[in-house]
Amino acid sequence: GVEVAGVEVEAVTTLEPLPEYRSAAVGQFKFEYLDHTADVQLHAWGCDLAEAFEQCGLAMFNYMSPLEHVRLRETRTYRAEGHDLSSLLFAFLDELLFEFNTELFLAAAVHITRLDREAWVIEAEGRGERFDRSRHEVGTEIKAITYSAMSIAEREGDAEVFVIVDI
Amino acid sequence: GVEVAGVEVEAVTTLEPLPEYRSAAVGQFKFEYLDHTADVQLHAWGCDLAEAFEQCGLAMFNYMSPLEHVRLRETRTYRAEGHDLSSLLFAFLDELLFEFNTELFLAAAVHITRLDREAWVIEAEGRGERFDRSRHEVGTEIKAITYSAMSIAEREGDAEVFVIVDI
Repeated sequence: GVEVAGVEVEAVTTLEPLPEYRSAAVGQFKFEYLDHTADVQLHAWGCDLAEAFEQCGLAMFNYMSPLEHVRLRETRTYRAEGHDLSSLLFAFLDELLFEFNTELFLAAAVHITRLDREAWVIEAEGRGERFDRSRHEVGTEIKAITYSAMSIAEREGDAEVFVIVDI
Repeated sequence: GVEVAGVEVEAVTTLEPLPEYRSAAVGQFKFEYLDHTADVQLHAWGCDLAEAFEQCGLAMFNYMSPLEHVRLRETRTYRAEGHDLSSLLFAFLDELLFEFNTELFLAAAVHITRLDREAWVIEAEGRGERFDRSRHEVGTEIKAITYSAMSIAEREGDAEVFVIVDI
């Protein structure tokens, strides 16, 4: 209410503010687009689990910026812990992604130096360089690793993994 | 087996063909990207259900090609049938999408001439023109309408719909 001449009255016209979401509408139209969701499935393989994991890491980096332009100029080390194979793969990829998000470090070669299936620890080295807008192509941002439909298969002399990541 | 000098022998080296999915691998790497999935949520509103539906159709066209470049040169008619409000909205949008996919017709104005909630029929007119690569921007392809989290709300003098479409 508003006080007019000492008497509290209701304001004649009450224009309620637009709900927040409507303020993003497109031009004169009465519609808008809400956040889209998207994901892509990475599939990587190798002659053993370590190589499949390494290749999965490279798949991730290559999606963010084509690795053909990334030079092997410095080495970073990664360490990840889990409690089984799936959580170890998740933590490993998450660690690579974290290093990119905080340091912009793109690895064009990844080597797992320790894959411990009792302590569930991975230690790895990545060789590459920091993202440089002038030389590197911008690919698609990877927002998060997911456990969705994650699959890890190991056979004699062969291993492969499937990981869905949010983009 | 192969016949050599009249004796059937096993070929010494059997190179099995790569599984189909591996043949799409990126360069020297042992990984590939499997189809990504993506969707976007359309949110449209109006002073009644018909206007919210119309605006939802426009939201769809505008996502595929910005409507500011689309001229009102011809009129098409649409007809859709359902068995309740959700299926009617689905069928209506599906009909607009079908007309685009088969005839490349983009409507920049949509008018529902009949919204029959007993027979569950919509009849509508779209004004616009066929997609012309030289004048129209290419937006994002809409692959399918979905029922996922579809929501239709009607209030006195106000209506809104939410529809998730696959892109």
